[in-house]
Amino acid sequence: MEDQSRRQFLQNAGLAGLATVSPLAAAPEKSKELFIHHVYFYLKDPNNAQDEAKLLEGLHKLSKVPTIQYVHIGKPASTNRSVIVRDYTFSWMCFFKNIIEEEIYQTHPIHLDFVKNYSHLWEKVLVYDSVGPKNADEA
Amino acid sequence: MEDQSRRQFLQNAGLAGLATVSPLAAAPEKSKELFIHHVYFYLKDPNNAQDEAKLLEGLHKLSKVPTIQYVHIGKPASTNRSVIVRDYTFSWMCFFKNIIEEEIYQTHPIHLDFVKNYSHLWEKVLVYDSVGPKNADEA
Repeated sequence: MEDQSRRQFLQNAGLAGLATVSPLAAAPEKSKELFIHHVYFYLKDPNNAQDEAKLLEGLHKLSKVPTIQYVHIGKPASTNRSVIVRDYTFSWMCFFKNIIEEEIYQTHPIHLDFVKNYSHLWEKVLVYDSVGPKNADEA
Repeated sequence: MEDQSRRQFLQNAGLAGLATVSPLAAAPEKSKELFIHHVYFYLKDPNNAQDEAKLLEGLHKLSKVPTIQYVHIGKPASTNRSVIVRDYTFSWMCFFKNIIEEEIYQTHPIHLDFVKNYSHLWEKVLVYDSVGPKNADEA
């Protein structure tokens, strides 16, 4: 059944509300895209453990944005070859189903609060947004 | 049961082969670390579609390294704020269980072949290796 006629069917059956309970089930099956939002945070005072703990607290709050499918908070690993960038304080990597869900994240009140309450801690952020098939074999 | 004694038990029971079917089940339960290896490739000739296709072919081969738990191949998304870096050709993001498994990947014949056969295509790579709890709540 096409997605539109499926929705119509559910509306007619008075089940449209139920359909929103499981966004994954409602998504078209052909959609296997994955949007990766990867941010590297550079603290103004990278040696300040209190600032680091504070930013980590903010990231924990930020992780509650509902469109985030998976989130990982990392620190630079001990690997240390010349091509490896390791001068940031935190890596923040999120999976989103697609660009629309990432836009919802950007403007979500939790995200706006995060920027308002914690952005004074960082000097800069580097953001890499990449999109591709969820299954790399299809790239 | 400790991992070693568990293996011993399975061997004694003639079940060692079965244990390798599900690496996740065999992993110690306390291990919840995740190592993210994120590489951004910059082609020497970024407008050369043939070079891009060739590198993608190489990445597909590289994705077969057995210690990779998950891999995503992406292109810069259409998001375009000032903090977003979008001048690379491919994003290559791998999950590893830990740094040891990433070291196995670095020296695996498939990886060495990839560097030998495809590194002439890129001008530079930027690598971010980040490590943290698999579940961000524990970060």
